This record gives sequence, C-alpha cells and structure tokens, in this order.
Amino acid sequence: MNAVPSDLIRDAQALSEEVIRPIPGSRKIFVGGSRDDVRVPMREIAQQRTPTLFGGEDNPPITVYDTSGPYTDPAANIDLAAGLPALRARWIEERNDTEALAGLSSEFGRAREHDPRLSAVRFPGRILPRRARDGANVTQMHYARRGIVTPEMEFVAIRENQRMDAMRDAGLLSQHAGQDFGASIQARITPEFVRDEIARGRAILPNNINHPESEPMIIGRNFLTKINANIGNSAVSSGIAEEVEKLVWAIRWGGDTVMDLSTGKHIHETREWIVRNSPVPIGTVPIYQALEKVDGRAEELTWEIFRDTLIEQAEQGVDYFTIHAGVLLRYVPLTARRVTGIVSRGGSILAKWCLAHHKENFLYTHFEDICDIMKAYDVAFSLGDGLRPGCIADANDAAQFGELETLGELTKIAWKHDVQTMIEGPGHVPMQLIKENMDKQLAECGEAPFYTLGPLTTDIAPGYDHITSAIGAAMIGWFGTAMLCYVTPKEHLGLPDREDVRDGIMAYKIAAHAADLAKGHPGAQIRDNALSKARFEFRWEDQFHLGLDPEKAKAFHDETLPKDAHKLAHFCSMCGPHFCSMKITQDVRDYAAEHGVDETQAIETGMAEKAGEFLAQGAEVYRPE
Amino acid sequence: MNAVPSDLIRDAQALSEEVIRPIPGSRKIFVGGSRDDVRVPMREIAQQRTPTLFGGEDNPPITVYDTSGPYTDPAANIDLAAGLPALRARWIEERNDTEALAGLSSEFGRAREHDPRLSAVRFPGRILPRRARDGANVTQMHYARRGIVTPEMEFVAIRENQRMDAMRDAGLLSQHAGQDFGASIQARITPEFVRDEIARGRAILPNNINHPESEPMIIGRNFLTKINANIGNSAVSSGIAEEVEKLVWAIRWGGDTVMDLSTGKHIHETREWIVRNSPVPIGTVPIYQALEKVDGRAEELTWEIFRDTLIEQAEQGVDYFTIHAGVLLRYVPLTARRVTGIVSRGGSILAKWCLAHHKENFLYTHFEDICDIMKAYDVAFSLGDGLRPGCIADANDAAQFGELETLGELTKIAWKHDVQTMIEGPGHVPMQLIKENMDKQLAECGEAPFYTLGPLTTDIAPGYDHITSAIGAAMIGWFGTAMLCYVTPKEHLGLPDREDVRDGIMAYKIAAHAADLAKGHPGAQIRDNALSKARFEFRWEDQFHLGLDPEKAKAFHDETLPKDAHKLAHFCSMCGPHFCSMKITQDVRDYAAEHGVDETQAIETGMAEKAGEFLAQGAEVYRPE
Repeated sequence: MNAVPSDLIRDAQALSEEVIRPIPGSRKIFVGGSRDDVRVPMREIAQQRTPTLFGGEDNPPITVYDTSGPYTDPAANIDLAAGLPALRARWIEERNDTEALAGLSSEFGRAREHDPRLSAVRFPGRILPRRARDGANVTQMHYARRGIVTPEMEFVAIRENQRMDAMRDAGLLSQHAGQDFGASIQARITPEFVRDEIARGRAILPNNINHPESEPMIIGRNFLTKINANIGNSAVSSGIAEEVEKLVWAIRWGGDTVMDLSTGKHIHETREWIVRNSPVPIGTVPIYQALEKVDGRAEELTWEIFRDTLIEQAEQGVDYFTIHAGVLLRYVPLTARRVTGIVSRGGSILAKWCLAHHKENFLYTHFEDICDIMKAYDVAFSLGDGLRPGCIADANDAAQFGELETLGELTKIAWKHDVQTMIEGPGHVPMQLIKENMDKQLAECGEAPFYTLGPLTTDIAPGYDHITSAIGAAMIGWFGTAMLCYVTPKEHLGLPDREDVRDGIMAYKIAAHAADLAKGHPGAQIRDNALSKARFEFRWEDQFHLGLDPEKAKAFHDETLPKDAHKLAHFCSMCGPHFCSMKITQDVRDYAAEHGVDETQAIETGMAEKAGEFLAQGAEVYRPE
Repeated sequence: MNAVPSDLIRDAQALSEEVIRPIPGSRKIFVGGSRDDVRVPMREIAQQRTPTLFGGEDNPPITVYDTSGPYTDPAANIDLAAGLPALRARWIEERNDTEALAGLSSEFGRAREHDPRLSAVRFPGRILPRRARDGANVTQMHYARRGIVTPEMEFVAIRENQRMDAMRDAGLLSQHAGQDFGASIQARITPEFVRDEIARGRAILPNNINHPESEPMIIGRNFLTKINANIGNSAVSSGIAEEVEKLVWAIRWGGDTVMDLSTGKHIHETREWIVRNSPVPIGTVPIYQALEKVDGRAEELTWEIFRDTLIEQAEQGVDYFTIHAGVLLRYVPLTARRVTGIVSRGGSILAKWCLAHHKENFLYTHFEDICDIMKAYDVAFSLGDGLRPGCIADANDAAQFGELETLGELTKIAWKHDVQTMIEGPGHVPMQLIKENMDKQLAECGEAPFYTLGPLTTDIAPGYDHITSAIGAAMIGWFGTAMLCYVTPKEHLGLPDREDVRDGIMAYKIAAHAADLAKGHPGAQIRDNALSKARFEFRWEDQFHLGLDPEKAKAFHDETLPKDAHKLAHFCSMCGPHFCSMKITQDVRDYAAEHGVDETQAIETGMAEKAGEFLAQGAEVYRPE
C-alpha cells in the first residue's frame, strides 16, 4: 500500500457551511425523559400569526422528527477529529454487562492500527472498543425480553411521539382514518410498547455498544416509517472527506440511518470517521470489505476472513450488518433464466462462492456463529436479499421467494439468540405485485421489520429512478415496510453527488410520510394540515419552513417572485394579484359565517335575499392589505 | 390596450435546437393503414447486438409511442408561421357534414381579427374555420354510435398497438399478469374496438374539426394511460414565443395532450399559435378567458360572454374544454369549513358568481346549450372538478363527492347529445382514499374517462410535488384513470420553466407506464424488458436510448465515467472494473447451461464434482474484451 495523500483527509476537518447551517425557520429543542440524560432532540418550526384578513389567530409551533444530530444545533461544538459526544456511554456502562477491551480483537483492525502509512487518514481520537462480558447478551432484544425498559427505549418512545400530547391539546390531531393492513398502530407510544415490540421482534433499535454517539431510533411497522441513505466511495471515486460530508448532508434532510457502502483502499479508516461522527445508526455490508481482503476473488473468501471482518466492524460501532445468508446453493441456478440474473453485489459474491466450491453458503452454515458476534456488540441483522429482482421481468420469482423463505428461517434462529433482525426486500416490482411481497414477508418472517429498496415500479426511466422507486416505496411502506432504502436519480448510471443524495432523500421522505398518512399513523397529518393552512393564508415563509426542503421551496418561489415583499403578498405567481381563488374561498367562508349557513342547511337558508347584500358590499375580493 | 412589443412574437418564428433535435438512437417511422393518408407516426429505437460474451445475438428495434409530431422528424419542414400540415383535413371534408364559414362566428374573435394593434402578434396563416352544417352532429361519438369507423379511429387503433404483432412474432410479449380492476383490456386494439369504446362513452378521441393538424389519440381506461402537460403564461410572466417552445418541449418528452392555461393580454393570439403548431389535442379552461373579458369581476360574467368565448375557442380548434358545470350553489357552503376551501380557479370563479347572484351556476343551467356548441365542432367536455380538495385534510369530502355526482348526471346529458366527455378529478388525496375516488367516478359517470390531477399524496413537500403526486397518479392510473394531468416541481410555488416541464412530464410518463404495467396492458413490458436486457449486457447506449430521457441518462452516466470507451465497458461506476455482479450472473448462466442444470433439479445434479472444474477454469470473472 502506498503512502496516503494527506489531502484525502485534510478537508474532513471542516464541513461546508451548507451542510451545517440551521434549517430555516426552526430551532433544535430537547424533550426530557425520566432521567436527566434522556434528552430527545426534535425540530420545532415556528409559525406566524394568521393575517387579520383570514382571522388573525396565533398558530402553534409544529414539532418534527429530527435526524440531523448536533450539526444543526448552533450551540453544538463540532469537531470531526474528536467525534460526537458519547451520549449513550453512561447507559451502556450502567448495565454492567460489557467491558472495555485492552485492544482491538480483529487481526485486520490491529494491523491497520499499527500501520504508520495510515496515520494521515486514521481517525485520531478513538477510544478502545467494548464487548459483552463472557456469556452476556447485550442486545436491546435481550433486555426487552427480560422486561427491561432501557433508556434507549424510553428515548425512542419520546422521539416517536413528537410531542403529540401538546398537539392533541392544541386540537391539531384531526386526520383521516387510515388503512393499516393489520398493523398495531398506537395512539400514543409508551416505553413499554417499544419494549414489547422489540421483544417480539416486530421492531429493532439498532445501536451497537461501540456507537455510543448514536441517538436511539426504532425501525418497525408500528412506528414512523424510516428511510435509509446509502453513501460510500467506490473504486473509481471519492474520498473520506467527501463521505463524511455526505453523511452530514444525508441526515440533514432526513436520513434515519446511513449505510456506508465504501469500497477501496481506506474503507476501514473511512468507516471510523463516519461512525464517530454519526448520530444515526450506520449499516454496512461486511462481505464487500471481506472481498477486498481477498483481492476481489470471491472464491477465496473464508469464514475466518469474514469473521474477522465482522469483529473489526462491530468494534468500530457499525449498528447493522447486511448478511446475505439466504443465498443458498440450490437457489443460484434458479437465477440462470432471469433477464438480469443476480444484481445484488453481495448476492453475486456468495453465488460465485457457492458455485466455485459447490458448498452451501458459509454465511448460512455459520449463521449461529454470526449470531454470537452480533449479540456481543448488539449489532442487528439486516438479512440481505441477494437474489432480489433486478428488473420488472424477474419480480416475485422462485429465486426471490425461495430466499425470502430462508430469511424467515434465519429470523427465527436470530431471535433464538435475541439478536435484533430486519429483512431486506426488493428491488424492481410492478405495482400489482408489491403487496404479495409484503404479505409474504410478514408471513414468513414473523413481522420482523421489512427494509426495502424501492421497489422500482418500471425499468424505463434511468435518470429518474428516485421517482420510479418512490412510487413503489410509498405503497410498500403503506402495506407495512418499516424502512425504505432510498434510490437516487443516478441509480444504474453513476455515483450520486450531493444534489442526488438530497433528491433521493426527498423522494423517500415523501414516500415514508405518504405511507404514514395512509396507515393512519397518529399525528402524521399535523404537518400537512399546518402547511396547507399556511398555504391558504398566504403565509409564504411558514409554507417554506413547514416543507421538507425549505431552501428549495423558497428558491423556487423566488425564481418567479423574487422580491421580499412577495413573501407577504396575498397572491402567488399562478394567478397573479388580480384574481385569487384563495381569496374567494375566504369570501365563501365569511359569507357562510355571517349568515349562519350550515353545511346541512345551505340551500334552505335565506341565501337569495342576501345575495344582493353581498354584491352591494363589493363582490370584488382582492383587497391589498 | 397598448401596442404590442414586437419581440413578444419575433422569437416564436424559430425554435431552439434543443427542443427539435432528433431523440438519440431512434428514428421516426410511419405505419400505414387502410388508406394512403392514414400514416401513424411512431418512434423506433435501434438496438446493438448483444456482446459476444453474453451470447452475441441480434436485438430487434423497439417501437415506442411518439407524441412529438413533426418536430423530431428530420424530413419535416417546420415553419411556425405556417403551422403544421392539416393531416385530417381530407377526412373532415369527406364526411361532408361541415362547412367552411365565411368569417369567425364569435364577436370577440372578429374584434381581435380586425384590431391593427395586434398585427405583430397575430398568427399570419389562419384559414377560415369550419362548423357543422345545420343540424349535423360532427362528434366522433356520433359517428361511433352510428357504426362508422372513422379514419381517426383507425389511426388510433394502429397507434395504440405500437406494432405489437411484430413484437409478438419476435417473442417479446412476455410479461406479468396484470390486475385491471374490471377494465376491458384487449390483447389487440382493433378499429372496431376503438369505435365501440367511443360509442359507449368509455373513451374519447378529442379532435376539433378546426384542429386538423392533430394526430388522433384516444383517452380511455382500456387504452394506454395518457398524460397532459399544462402550459400557459400568467399575468406576471411569459410570452407567446416561450409558450410555443414549451408546447414543442412538452410533446417531445411525451405530453399526450397540452392544456393552454394562458391568461393575460394576448391569450387569444397565443392560443392560435399554439393550436396551429400542435400535433396533440389542446385543452383550455374557457372561463379563464371569459373572466378577463369582464376585467376579473366574476359576478359580471354572463352566459352570453361565456358562449361567445366557447365559440371563439372552438373555431380556433381547441379540442377539449374544462367546464365547471358541477359547482352547484348548494355545494359552495360545503367548502366553508375546509382547510383550503376552493382551490380550483374555475371553481372559485363560479362559486363567487353563484354567491353574488344567489343563482344556480350558469354553466349548469345552460349545459345543453353548451352541448349544442360542442357537437358543432367536436369539442370534448372535460367536466371540471371545481371543488377538488386542495389539501390532504379536505380529500373525499361532501363538496367534492357532491360535485362528482353532478358530473355523473351531466355526463349522461352530454352523451344524450353524443358529445364526448371526460371527468376531472383531484387534487390532494392520501393513498388510502385514492381508490374510493376512482370507484365512485366509475360508478357515477358510467366509466367516462377519468382525468386526474395527481393526486398529491401529501402536502409537506413544496418543491417536490411532481413526486408527491406521481405516487398518487401511478396508483389512480392503475385503478382506472385514463389520463393524468402532470404536476411540476414548481406547483404551489411558481411558474414552471422548461426544466420543470421536463421533470413534470418524466414523473408522469413514469406514473402512466407503471399503471399500464400494473393493469397488464399488452406489450407494456416490452420496453422494460429490452432496457433491462441492455442493462444486463452493458449495452450502455441502448440503455440510454430505451429510457424515457436518453439525454439525461447519458449525462448522468458521463458525470462519473465521461470517456466514450466507458460506454463499451463491461462495468459501471458503482462497483468499478474489478468486480461486477452482472458478470457473475453470466457465469451462473454459463454454468447452468454447460452442465445442464435445470431449475427443478439444480441440487440433484452432479454439481459437486463440477465445482473443481469451474475453479480450474479460473473463477475470476472480469475479462476485458
């Protein structure tokens, strides 16, 4: 290995202003729990008063889920070389079932640690990792099954509720009835409910004991739908600085977890920088790195190399591992007649290994050994769908569903070890076949959280696959998927840049929220209602601030009506100042109110004689303030 | 009115190169019908041979639906000031039921025609309009009900089939079974089926006799799902040149119809330029122009002014009119308690009129008079949903559904006059309430085509409403909507520019195609399969060309891998050259083929002893060509 160019990392010391500036119109707040160190971050969006013309009332601030961590907190002191504060450290220590190790357990980790050529890229401030004491199981599932409500679970309960009680008191909880397809949606999330969901495997709380910087979050069909953003350099692009910046960018816009799919020379060091600076759970696909250790020759992979990689990453703090243990030898030939064969990198690595050795997938044969590692650090399984369809034609075929059945078996084994588990899903699926995926996953995997990529609902739009897949993602989220893995516009074409990451996240925040609305998740409609009221009342700034992307909304508005005065204008560029349907509606409302017109008696009342009066008052509605 | 700045129109004489250059990798073809002058344009996408590594076979060209008209035909001579060739003129004349008028029938049209101040913006080449002879009904529905298959119907049948027989012969018709929710999807579209669908009102073929330049197309749930793009300047922006360019741009990317929603000073002249140069049906909302004629004072609108506007526009060749005849007086107060009241401009204009006069909507009371005009020119109804919900909270309420019931009554009246009719639909609707909209529309309106705006599935993403709505559009298209009205990223914020138009159209082409796949429309999957095969075989250029937007796909690819050589590379930027899942799949395939491994006997065959052989052959898969 050559000496590392020092500029690879120099820039990671500072983040661009765009990725850390506060989000317009809102402030970071913390909601306290039962103990002083349970402080749950949320984002509060202030609202202006309703203009006098529309009634002149106050509008309460709206609380929204905040994944952005300390980066959007003006009070936080960000030092990438120090990493984020270890907010969970005390909780982990208090449980007294882990110990700080004297050194790294993985051979690879130790070799990297002592390689002087890596000093320029190595994260400087790492403390030694922890591991479960001998015989201990340190997973949240293990605690949950023993009836223990951890601070992490309480944190999650507060976070999921999003101050809903205050919203309920403010009369903001009105929304349409949902269709939840058999989910157990709660009116109020309690710590006990969180515990119960984790105990029965219906949700996971991914938080490696070596990632104490993470803010607890939960993935399960009875909680808010989450999204994952992938980052990662590849053999042909990108460096550490860029990846850390992408992480901060991704969580700014709402990434609930981030998968680091980096490959290449400094994969280990890149990951360390990412984990130390991430307030969200980090997932990886360890087989990618294992493959690099055998110079890309899949058939040379061994259980020992893979095991060392798991331990290496577990001790860095990775919160969930994609493990393609369901790619069984007997399923591989089922892909031969597909249009696009095996498109999962992990799936194809394992398929190649299986064929080369004519042996069963070593991830399958060593699955309980893997469980032993997972429970010593509380790493969650993300059971990979190595045989997912790569095109519409291959959707819901024997290979895909065979693997899904195996993932169901493996889920039960993981649960036997109290290891938290979610299941990855497709891929490319036309709309009429999406529900079958969800139903089969729920049935085979005992309601373990489903974590799907898209699915893309057509193959014909390269350059727009964030949209082809947001359609499928919204639907499968509605049907019960717990976390949606984003797809960017560059899918199938190239590596996403920062704008692509934003576009991908926005498409998926939309899909996740549309799913929450459709399921009837309590409080989901609060933000829609507030934004629509702001829109109706021409509170332009509030409309921007309540949106998923205030910066883009304002920029778009300003392209047509750039002046500041227009943010106060009671018209918009669509109809111009001389006619406005919103104003007419206000007239209807005033009229109905003044004349006591009720919904059920509109016609019966004496509207006729009042009509002349309305005309006499001047039926023109546009009155500049 | 002031003199017109001459630069308003000067630029309309020439189109930018970007909007008319041929679409990469494809050529315009014409498929002939039963008579010489039935020549149906389609776009044929050429494909390269499969690389030797993957089998080396030829790949047939793929035919796709082409809305772009002569603009993408290098053989066409485009002269905006002359307009497009009147390809339907002979068919219209042959029917011998219309006559050329001696002059314009509308007062307004005549006034504009003789106003010297408008000469700089007036379309120069207009011939005199036609109208039905006294007592004649010239609608396609009227012909259809008398058993006549018009050349327009035959044109449509050929167009909808997209040379499917050739595709079937080439073995390309394999696809998943659809779920069509009771539609009558045909394996092959015959002219007789087109006639029958129009006769029973389940489809419309919008083609005003004064728009002989249009290429016939059909809107109905048993045909390909269509999309509409809105263009139009407003009081605060844009000119004629820009609108004509937007038209050409919109149909380039797949707009099946275009609505001209222009307002402002030169609305009449802008429309003339648009209609004369449009190969797709043009829709308008005549109440917008009528309102301008009374200087924006809705209460001063009269039937006479409106009637003159209908005739003015019918004689220009507008193919369908949005008519908000379902906004009844008794429904207006039902909107008073909504979060966003009445958001349809047309709806609010009529609501204001109703309240001001305390009279029933004059479009409702004069509905049969309107039918008489429609059938004299074959203008189709697009019965407007003036009370559509403007936010999630207001979805599926009494006002919306009351209006829909009235639109159902009006449909039957229109059909009594053999006037073609479609029904406009919402709006903002959360996913779980979408199907109710579709089912109610089918039931109330006797399967008249539904034409929906979105629906947007959440309100919280200003700046991304092409995506919030593409989700709803794909779903409602699947459920039975015949045409989807696009939404651009600028919705709620400003007026779309050219890039916004493209983004909106792409989102809606995706939604429409996803719907066709889900319904199981015959042949819908051909393009997906071809693109996916090209993707698997690393035929990068073919992948771009088969996509909805070849230019963007190539540009995205080139951002990461700009060199031309990379278009031939058997790898992509995601995994780099040293490992590729596609290549591994090819190994699986080769292995299965070589060793006679069948899907059902994979495990039973002697794969074990072959494993050593595979390794011996060199299990490394990346072999540069």
